[in-house]
Amino acid sequence: MGNEQTRGLLIVLSGPSGTGKGTVVRALLDKRADTVLSVSATTRAPREGEIDGVHYHFIDQKTFLRLIEENAFLEYAEYNGNFYGTPKAAAEAQLRAGRNVVLEIEVQGAGQVMNSGADILSIFLAVPSMEELERRLRGRGTEDEATIRSRLALAKEEMKQAFRYQYVVMNDVVEDAVMRIETIIKTENMRYPRMEKTIMEVIESC
Amino acid sequence: MGNEQTRGLLIVLSGPSGTGKGTVVRALLDKRADTVLSVSATTRAPREGEIDGVHYHFIDQKTFLRLIEENAFLEYAEYNGNFYGTPKAAAEAQLRAGRNVVLEIEVQGAGQVMNSGADILSIFLAVPSMEELERRLRGRGTEDEATIRSRLALAKEEMKQAFRYQYVVMNDVVEDAVMRIETIIKTENMRYPRMEKTIMEVIESC
Repeated sequence: MGNEQTRGLLIVLSGPSGTGKGTVVRALLDKRADTVLSVSATTRAPREGEIDGVHYHFIDQKTFLRLIEENAFLEYAEYNGNFYGTPKAAAEAQLRAGRNVVLEIEVQGAGQVMNSGADILSIFLAVPSMEELERRLRGRGTEDEATIRSRLALAKEEMKQAFRYQYVVMNDVVEDAVMRIETIIKTENMRYPRMEKTIMEVIESC
Repeated sequence: MGNEQTRGLLIVLSGPSGTGKGTVVRALLDKRADTVLSVSATTRAPREGEIDGVHYHFIDQKTFLRLIEENAFLEYAEYNGNFYGTPKAAAEAQLRAGRNVVLEIEVQGAGQVMNSGADILSIFLAVPSMEELERRLRGRGTEDEATIRSRLALAKEEMKQAFRYQYVVMNDVVEDAVMRIETIIKTENMRYPRMEKTIMEVIESC
């Protein structure tokens, strides 16, 4: 007691594609010095400007496969012949240092983490309406009609996965979504186990 | 759907004697129109100025005993030959109308409610230090040394019951304690089951 650091929260932030997870996470990290993003490991080659240990941990396939065998990932997946995974050890070190670790993951990958037995706080970032999502997708101006249609259909299916998460946060306005996540973090820190040390100190204070 | 009212939260607010539950509850109710205090039933005679249905529901002992038989109380207890209880029906009507219902109860009585199977949000209001509690008890100037000593000893024992509650809120400054309770309420309203209707509306919006 006394010197012990209260463990940080492992936060899974997920939601339909196009819901703005990246923007919300960046705004959250900018606001909170006690919260960091989990850096994924990948076997794909670094793109220009990507820094090892910042954007990804770049490792070779042999190492990746060995880490899978060693159960070293909270979740991993293969896309386009490359592996991507969330290393347990790095997250664990941050959590022990009292920092909250955010895993920003797709709805498809979230189930793996949530079933991993890890003590997580799961948040589903929802789009306020399908019209709004369509507006956002069209606003990018990078996708053709068929792609937009299929992404909307996918998002609709993904919205049905909200029930798997503890909390639902509407991403209507980025700043409001960030405040809602902070509200959840503050509440989580008032749960009895996180307050136990404080309570014990009060009891011993006389 | 659509017309259905989201059910309010049944909030058990408890904590050691002298921790200032009454003050915090009054400040919370002043701030939130969506939150009401549960009115207890009692067999004791009304005191001057007490209004039936506001301070207590004043009922006779025969009625009280019948209500116990009918399992009509969330919790009840006998003090000094009088019965006191929390009627289920009144709380239920408020919850259905979408209002949060606060049960302000002693640590001794809280266990009964928490074991009743009711869906509750339990909050332990803690004193920031035993010195502070002593200052508060002495500040009242109404109790003798022996009474103060025995109340402090009781409060210390009661602080050890914090682990029975979901959340611990420090009552260092009343306004801060109220804000913390509101933070918990906001978070509770972001839990999936309370967001389900909203999610369904988004899914159906295209």
